[in-house]
Amino acid sequence: MPYLYDFAEVNGADPELLGGKGSGLAEMTALGLPVPPGFTITTEVCRTAMETGELPSGLWEEVDKAIVRLEEKTGRSFGTGPVPILLSVRSGASISMPGMMDTILNVGINDEVAGALTEWSDDKHFAWDAYRRFVQMYGDVVLGVPDEQFQQVLDNLRVKRGVSDDSELKAKDLERATHMFKAIIQRESPSSLPADPMEQLRGAITAVFQSWGNQRAIDYRRIHGIPDELGTAATVQMMVFGDLGEDSGTGVCFTRDPATGERVSYGDYLPRAQGEDVVAGIRNTVTLDDLAGIHPECHAELLRIMDDLEKHYRDMCDIEFTIEKDNLYILQARIGKRTAEAAVRLAVTMVREGMIDRPTAVGRVDPAALEQLHRPRINRSSAPKPLARGVAASPGAATGKAVFSSDRAVEVARSGEEVILVRSETTPNDIHGMAAAVGILTSQGGKTSHAAVVARGMGKPAVTGAASLVVDSSARLASVGGNDIRESTEITIDGTTGNVYGTAVDLIAPEEIPELTELLGWADEIRTMGVLANADTPEDAAEARSRGAAGIGLARTEHMFLGERLSVVQDIILASTEEERTAALDELERLQVDDFEGLLEAMDGLPVVVRLLDPPLHEFLPSRLELEQEAVRRVRAGRPIADLHKMSAQVARWEEDNPMLGLRGVRLGLMVDQLYRMQARAAVTAFENRLAAGGAPILEIMVPLVSTVEELRLMRAVIEEEIRDNDIPIGTMIELPRAALTAGEIAKEADFFSFGTNDLTQMTYGLSRDDAEGLFLRDYLERGILEADPFQTIDQRGVGRLIRVAVDEGRAANPDLVVGLCGEHGGDPASIAFVHGLGLDYVSCSPPRIEGARLAAAQAELSNQPVDLT
Amino acid sequence: MPYLYDFAEVNGADPELLGGKGSGLAEMTALGLPVPPGFTITTEVCRTAMETGELPSGLWEEVDKAIVRLEEKTGRSFGTGPVPILLSVRSGASISMPGMMDTILNVGINDEVAGALTEWSDDKHFAWDAYRRFVQMYGDVVLGVPDEQFQQVLDNLRVKRGVSDDSELKAKDLERATHMFKAIIQRESPSSLPADPMEQLRGAITAVFQSWGNQRAIDYRRIHGIPDELGTAATVQMMVFGDLGEDSGTGVCFTRDPATGERVSYGDYLPRAQGEDVVAGIRNTVTLDDLAGIHPECHAELLRIMDDLEKHYRDMCDIEFTIEKDNLYILQARIGKRTAEAAVRLAVTMVREGMIDRPTAVGRVDPAALEQLHRPRINRSSAPKPLARGVAASPGAATGKAVFSSDRAVEVARSGEEVILVRSETTPNDIHGMAAAVGILTSQGGKTSHAAVVARGMGKPAVTGAASLVVDSSARLASVGGNDIRESTEITIDGTTGNVYGTAVDLIAPEEIPELTELLGWADEIRTMGVLANADTPEDAAEARSRGAAGIGLARTEHMFLGERLSVVQDIILASTEEERTAALDELERLQVDDFEGLLEAMDGLPVVVRLLDPPLHEFLPSRLELEQEAVRRVRAGRPIADLHKMSAQVARWEEDNPMLGLRGVRLGLMVDQLYRMQARAAVTAFENRLAAGGAPILEIMVPLVSTVEELRLMRAVIEEEIRDNDIPIGTMIELPRAALTAGEIAKEADFFSFGTNDLTQMTYGLSRDDAEGLFLRDYLERGILEADPFQTIDQRGVGRLIRVAVDEGRAANPDLVVGLCGEHGGDPASIAFVHGLGLDYVSCSPPRIEGARLAAAQAELSNQPVDLT
Repeated sequence: MPYLYDFAEVNGADPELLGGKGSGLAEMTALGLPVPPGFTITTEVCRTAMETGELPSGLWEEVDKAIVRLEEKTGRSFGTGPVPILLSVRSGASISMPGMMDTILNVGINDEVAGALTEWSDDKHFAWDAYRRFVQMYGDVVLGVPDEQFQQVLDNLRVKRGVSDDSELKAKDLERATHMFKAIIQRESPSSLPADPMEQLRGAITAVFQSWGNQRAIDYRRIHGIPDELGTAATVQMMVFGDLGEDSGTGVCFTRDPATGERVSYGDYLPRAQGEDVVAGIRNTVTLDDLAGIHPECHAELLRIMDDLEKHYRDMCDIEFTIEKDNLYILQARIGKRTAEAAVRLAVTMVREGMIDRPTAVGRVDPAALEQLHRPRINRSSAPKPLARGVAASPGAATGKAVFSSDRAVEVARSGEEVILVRSETTPNDIHGMAAAVGILTSQGGKTSHAAVVARGMGKPAVTGAASLVVDSSARLASVGGNDIRESTEITIDGTTGNVYGTAVDLIAPEEIPELTELLGWADEIRTMGVLANADTPEDAAEARSRGAAGIGLARTEHMFLGERLSVVQDIILASTEEERTAALDELERLQVDDFEGLLEAMDGLPVVVRLLDPPLHEFLPSRLELEQEAVRRVRAGRPIADLHKMSAQVARWEEDNPMLGLRGVRLGLMVDQLYRMQARAAVTAFENRLAAGGAPILEIMVPLVSTVEELRLMRAVIEEEIRDNDIPIGTMIELPRAALTAGEIAKEADFFSFGTNDLTQMTYGLSRDDAEGLFLRDYLERGILEADPFQTIDQRGVGRLIRVAVDEGRAANPDLVVGLCGEHGGDPASIAFVHGLGLDYVSCSPPRIEGARLAAAQAELSNQPVDLT
Repeated sequence: MPYLYDFAEVNGADPELLGGKGSGLAEMTALGLPVPPGFTITTEVCRTAMETGELPSGLWEEVDKAIVRLEEKTGRSFGTGPVPILLSVRSGASISMPGMMDTILNVGINDEVAGALTEWSDDKHFAWDAYRRFVQMYGDVVLGVPDEQFQQVLDNLRVKRGVSDDSELKAKDLERATHMFKAIIQRESPSSLPADPMEQLRGAITAVFQSWGNQRAIDYRRIHGIPDELGTAATVQMMVFGDLGEDSGTGVCFTRDPATGERVSYGDYLPRAQGEDVVAGIRNTVTLDDLAGIHPECHAELLRIMDDLEKHYRDMCDIEFTIEKDNLYILQARIGKRTAEAAVRLAVTMVREGMIDRPTAVGRVDPAALEQLHRPRINRSSAPKPLARGVAASPGAATGKAVFSSDRAVEVARSGEEVILVRSETTPNDIHGMAAAVGILTSQGGKTSHAAVVARGMGKPAVTGAASLVVDSSARLASVGGNDIRESTEITIDGTTGNVYGTAVDLIAPEEIPELTELLGWADEIRTMGVLANADTPEDAAEARSRGAAGIGLARTEHMFLGERLSVVQDIILASTEEERTAALDELERLQVDDFEGLLEAMDGLPVVVRLLDPPLHEFLPSRLELEQEAVRRVRAGRPIADLHKMSAQVARWEEDNPMLGLRGVRLGLMVDQLYRMQARAAVTAFENRLAAGGAPILEIMVPLVSTVEELRLMRAVIEEEIRDNDIPIGTMIELPRAALTAGEIAKEADFFSFGTNDLTQMTYGLSRDDAEGLFLRDYLERGILEADPFQTIDQRGVGRLIRVAVDEGRAANPDLVVGLCGEHGGDPASIAFVHGLGLDYVSCSPPRIEGARLAAAQAELSNQPVDLT
């Protein structure tokens, strides 16, 4: 097998052999585009070098021949005049690893070549700038001289000349710098800078291959799960120069608008510049239309190429081009990145244009991005500098008055103000405050903290873990870097970026995108898996329905125990007589009937799965710590504390060291007499009321935290007594490893399973989400100990294996078993694809993620991705 | 198939068909013992009745014939004189369900028969006592008249006659009572009492079969996992009477002393009495030797029978007999219950006598009972009434002065006093107090609470969950039912029974039993699975070694961080500069080197598996709650609290909502720089010091709480740096479901696995042991929701399945992998049998359970019990 291939020699892309860059250049060359010629040394060469410790012996001979072919093709020459060729040497693996490996530009230059270049370009500044860049880069990358030493020379020269930018230095200065660079190399490096262009080339190629093994690249691969054995290719390409004079320049263009997806001319051109200058934004660019005036032929050719490329890739392309002395060169073309809005519009438009079919369109849009489309956004053009930065926990932006407790949030919101709830962290006791706020800001916790999860569920923007914020809720203020945010200060949070602003900021309302409806309609035709919603209120249910949810897969009842009802719930827990307890239970039952009726009405004709109470009862009581803190305040104020001590004793009975592993879920149902029975009765009463009112309610009742079939058997008997002869299925969450491992037994007592993947992940890893977020999860992700956050994407090897066991054995034991998933993962595309592969009947997710889930389910169907559990 | 079998008709036991009782009577009859004749109606009849709702139609005909055979065999007659037969009708399933089903005695009596009996016995009192007993029992069991109504009649009669016992009533009174009983039945029951003996018999048989389905029996079966389909047999047997006069009597004897196992005459005889009188202990019995004087022939025959039975069963027997008019009858013979001491001595003696072989002897002793043999015991003859009762958490008894904090325990113990540590519950911060105490008493927690587990590990008696005790540690007292236990009050706890005494109580020291050493030697020859110890100190290690441990399978290092070292550990956690931190780490390292040297020296030549730090760091800090409580006290005393608030802020950084699921184990090792490295270095230094001292140290290092192979890979690299070229294997705990599920990956980085079944059970069930003990575990067990406490015996279906997966896949990936278990379950015989079936290399348990584990491992080998995971 040859060690290298000319771009023009290879038909079709082969990224495994040529790397992404090399195969792209070959592909464009084959399309007849004006790509500067060159060749690619294969990844196979890299793999051989890894095995043997050196590059294969015949490689340099092939390189020599390739250079000869290059000279013949271009009529230029490498290492001499009249028109010298300079080369770029770049790495390129089959999987992109941006910036991780080395690149060397302008290879093939020495004093003689610099002279020839000066003559050819009639521009000494250009020639010596290329020369000094080469020496600097080669010295750094190949010879290991720290780049700071070169920068120091340039810094000194700039100071001397009183200029701020290297480009303003004179040719003379650049020549001088080049000589000084060489002296530095002489002093600092055991090897010297080769003057021989071929030797330069061999050094550069060797260095590029070696950079596959540098620590940065190794770490990156570890984190992104890229095998070390892949190896990189090395691409050697003739340099073209956009900075040769007024008839040269460089630009970037998109075949459509990447922000909106509209078919408009979209691009930037910068005369007399190199590619990096466009990106750096040092000088102002001109538009493509302006380019038509400057280089009419090049402009026309570019438009033709844009059209060809879009037809070839059947997608919007992002193109880098350079004009060298009125000749157009295409340096790179790739599928262009786009906003969610553009992605939707592009996909649908291209179907209308006949470029792609509907399944392709459905596959083109990132489901996770759809959520952004319904949220207001920051107007970046008018946004000030952020005051702080945290985790982008729930997308969208919100402006409101800062409040530091949930009770204040409710009070201030009632007066008609929009508020942002600012807390160090939130707990279930903050639900009423979060519901009253337009956005949530916390100083602790990450993407899956309580605040983040609840905010996403509520469809509200949230920034969490803004660590520079110090929240003092008792003083009603937060401070950040010396600035105080006091109660009622207007602040703005951007949950899409994690930015926090200390003022009101211009927000842009989301636009309706008709193409989205069309795209989701196609997705619905394709997909076989149901998408339901996690919704606890009629408002959530209505939103979910409008987003296309086929019912409620998880109606949590704990939120119905909070806010104004907390005192009733506390009466139930702390009642000293049976009569008090029954009275409180009765009151809560009446309220719950209304709750359930609201849900059933909003979802009339569609199923509503009600989950009985899950959290431990002490979540509805103050903690002993809070009581003691209050005691300190009272003693200081000379007030009595006997009642606090009494309460503390009662709380102590219920508090747990590890509440996640305590008296919750079905355990509560079995231990706290009447509680589950009351909830079941309330749900059934609501069901019957809705029937009587002419509705078409579909109710299902779900028991949480079952670990052994006996729990479900006993609880099922109680619930069945309340259901009487109504048709109301009873199912269970599968959220403990033991439930999954004994699913065959449990399935005999269950009409349906719903995987509670949040808890299942916590138990399988032995990891509390909230504690881990605060203490080590981010670090684990950064260090690559975890490849992905298992609370966002299902861990297939561990948690996924349990799910598979439960699906297979549950269905084997009960062929009628309906199986769904209602954890946070229900809205995650990768997790949806995974459980689609396991044959789940539905996923259930928060209303803002419904649309994404519909799309992801369709994509899963299209890819029909087999599940790999090895 | 016949519906019934005469005792004499059946060869060999068939408990499935005849029930335990019926098959035992048939067996004894076949042995030629003088068993009162009778027959057994099969369990098949019961099953038929359950299916069809009625007894099979041909049954009564067979019963009639059996009665005729009975009359022929005995020369007596049923339902008439001159010598009337009375019958007992008893239930008997194949699995014993003591007291759960019904029995009816003296069936076949009416006015006429009572007259005939009077004539035959010349004892009207006897005849009418039998009659009134029958009426009372039949009325209660068959006709459903509440027994209290009959008791009321007897009560009145006793009061009237001024006697305290029914037996002191005159024959006339009994006759009168019988008539009154009949009147009560007439009034209370829709059915009347049949006078026809055959009708009585049919009623009794029907009632006995029906009692299989009473609620009490159903509940019992549910709790003990006995299938409802088994059904019971019904045994009909001729009554014999020990209360016929001075030539009659009844007794119980054992073929050897059940308390010591010695070959002595051991039994009680009570002249003129029925069996229940012996058990009730109303009158004083005489010895077997005395019986020789009263009934020499019967005594000789009994001795012969005892010998025959022991030879037949090859074990010590427990025999009930009755002498009726100088005729000896054997009513029941079964394998006798015995103390642990007797079990050991019997087993070994019988091998010496050639009755059984060594494997049989090894199989005869309950491994769980061995632990008792080394603890002092309460002298029950002198023990007062207990003050309170709790859970028998760690066997043995201890007397000492009550102390209410661990610091006081240490202080008082230092002054030479023995102390009992009394707490509401214990935490890892109490270890030094528990170590200083001779026994532990808590008001909360069960058999697997912290106090119980640590006490068992330390081999100290403990009573936990003594709920009537209210402990006020700040006031240094506990109150129980109005009595106060103040500091330094002498109290006694009996961890074998759960009793708590408010004074010192006579204790008996344990005796050395040479037979135990012999028996364990045989066990060691049989077993293939290793038994190691969980030991953290040289003292524990020495004890473990003396009990036969083959090394330390788990040396926890957290105990080395407590007591006097706590301040150093707090310095490590709270250090404000890197220098402070390093200094504290260095100090702790020096101390750890000594710790490890001590362990390696005590176990010289045997492996010591050191587990790196496991618990979260905040366990070494005061809690915020404690700090606030202290703040309340200080504010009241007018003292400043600024330092507390500072500490509280530091603690807040580390505190977790669910510490069990938080920053602990290998997560600490990865996140807290230098901590694990320091521990590994200390262990390796100790290893090298021991080598230099001429010892033969064998060290292994174990990483806890691994959930993903990457954690172990990173940690292993760090530890390997410290090990250098020493031969020290590195392994990991498998204690999280995910570790088990990905064991194939983890095994590639591990030299050994050790199952941490405590945590594995917690995570698999989603159940915190301590929280569950306090709030619902006992209730779950009582209600049969859990069949067994999963923290004592491995849950085979869930946790066991994970263990199997990990063993199989771990060994497949790494054939050299050594696999052990070091949770609490390592000392539990059922769990040992289970993991033996999975092929584990060893179990590791606390020193007092070592001997039991050796025995259990041998028994597992003998039974070679296949593992059932269905």
